Amino acid sequence: MKISLVPANATIGNYEKNLHEHFEIIQKITKKAQVDLIVFPELSSFGYAPKDLLYYEKYLSEYFLALEKFQEKVAKEFSNLAVLFGGIARVSPFGEKKAATFHGLANVAYFIQGDRRELRGKTLIPFYDIFTESRYFDSALFWDKNRAKPIDYKGKKIGVLICEDSWFSTNLSNQRVHQLDPVDELLKSNPDLLINLSASPFEKTKLERRRDEIKTAAQRIKKPIFYVNRSGAQDEVIFDADCFAYSSNGELIDEGKRFTSTSLEVSIEQKSKKAEKVDECEDIYSALVYGIREYFRKSGFTQAVLGLSGGIDSALVATLAVDALGAENVQGIAMPSKFSSSHSLEDAEILAKNLKIRLQYFPIKMLHSTLDLALQPFFTGQKADETEENIQSRLRGVVVMAFANKFRSLALATGNKSELSMGYSTIYGDMCGALLPIGDLWKEDVYRLANYINQKEERIPQRSITKEPSAELRPNQKDQDSLPPYEKLDPILAELIEQEKTVQEVYEGQKEMNFSLEEIEKLKRKIIQNEYKRFQSPPILKVSRRAFGSGRQVPINYYF
Amino acid sequence: MKISLVPANATIGNYEKNLHEHFEIIQKITKKAQVDLIVFPELSSFGYAPKDLLYYEKYLSEYFLALEKFQEKVAKEFSNLAVLFGGIARVSPFGEKKAATFHGLANVAYFIQGDRRELRGKTLIPFYDIFTESRYFDSALFWDKNRAKPIDYKGKKIGVLICEDSWFSTNLSNQRVHQLDPVDELLKSNPDLLINLSASPFEKTKLERRRDEIKTAAQRIKKPIFYVNRSGAQDEVIFDADCFAYSSNGELIDEGKRFTSTSLEVSIEQKSKKAEKVDECEDIYSALVYGIREYFRKSGFTQAVLGLSGGIDSALVATLAVDALGAENVQGIAMPSKFSSSHSLEDAEILAKNLKIRLQYFPIKMLHSTLDLALQPFFTGQKADETEENIQSRLRGVVVMAFANKFRSLALATGNKSELSMGYSTIYGDMCGALLPIGDLWKEDVYRLANYINQKEERIPQRSITKEPSAELRPNQKDQDSLPPYEKLDPILAELIEQEKTVQEVYEGQKEMNFSLEEIEKLKRKIIQNEYKRFQSPPILKVSRRAFGSGRQVPINYYF
Repeated sequence: MKISLVPANATIGNYEKNLHEHFEIIQKITKKAQVDLIVFPELSSFGYAPKDLLYYEKYLSEYFLALEKFQEKVAKEFSNLAVLFGGIARVSPFGEKKAATFHGLANVAYFIQGDRRELRGKTLIPFYDIFTESRYFDSALFWDKNRAKPIDYKGKKIGVLICEDSWFSTNLSNQRVHQLDPVDELLKSNPDLLINLSASPFEKTKLERRRDEIKTAAQRIKKPIFYVNRSGAQDEVIFDADCFAYSSNGELIDEGKRFTSTSLEVSIEQKSKKAEKVDECEDIYSALVYGIREYFRKSGFTQAVLGLSGGIDSALVATLAVDALGAENVQGIAMPSKFSSSHSLEDAEILAKNLKIRLQYFPIKMLHSTLDLALQPFFTGQKADETEENIQSRLRGVVVMAFANKFRSLALATGNKSELSMGYSTIYGDMCGALLPIGDLWKEDVYRLANYINQKEERIPQRSITKEPSAELRPNQKDQDSLPPYEKLDPILAELIEQEKTVQEVYEGQKEMNFSLEEIEKLKRKIIQNEYKRFQSPPILKVSRRAFGSGRQVPINYYF
Repeated sequence: MKISLVPANATIGNYEKNLHEHFEIIQKITKKAQVDLIVFPELSSFGYAPKDLLYYEKYLSEYFLALEKFQEKVAKEFSNLAVLFGGIARVSPFGEKKAATFHGLANVAYFIQGDRRELRGKTLIPFYDIFTESRYFDSALFWDKNRAKPIDYKGKKIGVLICEDSWFSTNLSNQRVHQLDPVDELLKSNPDLLINLSASPFEKTKLERRRDEIKTAAQRIKKPIFYVNRSGAQDEVIFDADCFAYSSNGELIDEGKRFTSTSLEVSIEQKSKKAEKVDECEDIYSALVYGIREYFRKSGFTQAVLGLSGGIDSALVATLAVDALGAENVQGIAMPSKFSSSHSLEDAEILAKNLKIRLQYFPIKMLHSTLDLALQPFFTGQKADETEENIQSRLRGVVVMAFANKFRSLALATGNKSELSMGYSTIYGDMCGALLPIGDLWKEDVYRLANYINQKEERIPQRSITKEPSAELRPNQKDQDSLPPYEKLDPILAELIEQEKTVQEVYEGQKEMNFSLEEIEKLKRKIIQNEYKRFQSPPILKVSRRAFGSGRQVPINYYF
């Protein structure tokens, strides 16, 4: 049996377009290869994650009609071909009797072939991190009597799993109280193969964990497993388009190219091959480039604008943007103030030259003086403080946004996760932007990526990497004046934020860092005090287990 | 039996402080009255809603120790008194056997008296609107064998319910698949009375619905019901402190004063009384004043600053702020531009005089010209467009934030829901602020509240109410140049946004509005196109069923 795995990239809510693309893909694949089954990812027909759009009952009714038409069209042109794709279904968790008065929604896989249609529901409904599926979907446990029944097709029994269903061992959904492993359940009916339809967000090192999970499962149950993840990105979330198959003895049969929407044709009978090695920096870099490109495409923009300070953060974002959008579509603005050092502008210029992007030179000195002067009468007797620093940053924000508005571009913000954690970023200033591409990278990760980029040739000016980090908002300001060095700080912040450790735990677990309990407590307080800024942050591309954004839900005002 | 209902106002995460306040309240109440039982609201010991703080396992361990100490302290000083309060418990959804290797968390009510301690779990775990409880809590259904068992105390059998447990008929949680009404379940054990501990968010007209629900339940089950909601506000959410009791024949026994933390002492034997009438405008106004006051208190600020345009929106916000914080703590800034009409400044001045607040006069003309001039070389050959309008709004934002930073004040943004829906607000401009108090009020609600405020005396200048709404960002600009009049627009937007109707449904349901299908479609498109602005919006005080904010979760980039 030959199966095509298609990591389709759906637009949320635009089911007409998505189904149309499904059809075109089917045409294309069947033209080039003889396949028995084409598989699309989780929710491929509606887009992932639809969130509260699922409350629009009438649109869903129209969607169900569109599904019918899609099947008719496929049946007419490809009567022998089977298609397995992700979608939504109205279901009756209370059984047929009450169906007329009550229904719920479910996340399902549709199997269609000719007139035949079957569906299988998702059992483990995740709602940790960015997932909120329980808000909408009822677990198959409560309505799908075929849940653990494989689909018979061409003499094979195909067991269907949806995303989280393969992650029972690490599952955090509230279906855990039922202690059911969907893989084990399926196994009772002795399937010939399993297929998992996913919409699994990118995270660094997740590829390895995912492959291991599936490989181990294949070995445990002694059946081949096929896996297809969706491609594209949606707002904060990047999907890596991972497609692969493991044989019944846990050997990789084949794998697709990630971060594209290219399909992978693979048959159970194929020989195994070696998995391609993935370098962690390359992986994160590719994901971020892909995430930026997708964000622009989905919001209908082609051009980006950003402030270039000569520092490493804006240099990294500019490089990512160039690789995502093309140099001709990226515009840098150098906005030196009276506190900018001479090398700031130079480094911005070298970067622009290296990247072949336009650089505008817009000194904010005069604007800054005009405002300072106008504010003087109101601020008489007040000491200079962060107000003045913020003003510089905010005036730059106004300028960047003016360029963005005038040239129909999206502004990119350049903050990193260390800064955002500590509040070393100005709300409405350097935090202005449609997207914050590196907001989930610790400063140390920023250095690693910059060095990775420069491996082949110097694209980011070496001085931007080696010079001491500074916001240059007051004379001779350095990040390390008020913060520990990032190589010491980042691991502590990661434990406090990503690993949910208490101050005491971090204190006891630190490796020769020599932070006092009070210092760690102070860092925690800083994190908490700056929640209000992150509440208004642009969307941050998620690359870690716990990114700032909708996957980390904390109050604004609290004490801990 | 005399019961004290205490609508305590907890700080999320600060269980030491919360429990200390519980103890002080107990001391105070027992000094003034002879009570048998003191009842605190849902999660009163930890604060509602704790969100991802619940992932910090070690802090929870410390919290459990603090609970022990609290009980010891209460037992020592008040050995005969019973206290019922809200908290968190570690529970074993898989039964005792697996408890050592796995536990979940539960939202529970603790009953303590002397050494005795019992707990009862929440059965219906909400996960709609702002609620995300299923992310953390396991339903009592899965672990609490005492779930439907009343607590025996002084010869009475007390049935305990937590918030949503009383809302089975309208429940949207995923426990609906089990079709269990916690009230019915409790009834099987023939309780003498029921008590509901709540943390129920304020919404306009919800008071009536809540009272009806409880009253009807009391009549249905023929038992008295006591209800206590929490007070205070948390970020976007206001809690009205509603405390009351209905007798077994559905008559109101007594009710407390809302929007305070004052306790209500009430006994089953008491005679009934008439409920106080609540005017809808008064209700919303009180809620917003309370929400602002609480936001400032919890974030440690006393002073507010906002731009005063002479328009009705900023006038309403200023009035709310004055009533929340005191006139001496509110500072207005008039920032006329070359497009401001003469009455703008006059109206701002009259407002400031009426409200007795400081008004600063900060014309942005020169700043604006300086920036325009500096931008000219970059914008050669480009037509004037929204860029220039946004610049004005953003420069005002910089000025307001400078005042906020310099005088340790919080900036208040002044947008309303109609504007936010249509994107008639400038991101990083008039959307700057720590809080957006009227972001859940339609423009028509803004007029209603303004007229309500002016009932006794003119506080908001009459001209601000009667003049045509305008952003004054270009010559003679009026909102109605590009939007239908608000009395026609608001109902349509409410249907599209709050009632999740499709364009077709709105079109068919409109009452002599004469919108074409295309016009409604255009409005929908505008709503969708502006999701990105609302993603970065300050927290909006929720007063409707569906406010912009965490209770409305939609993608940024989608097509519908």
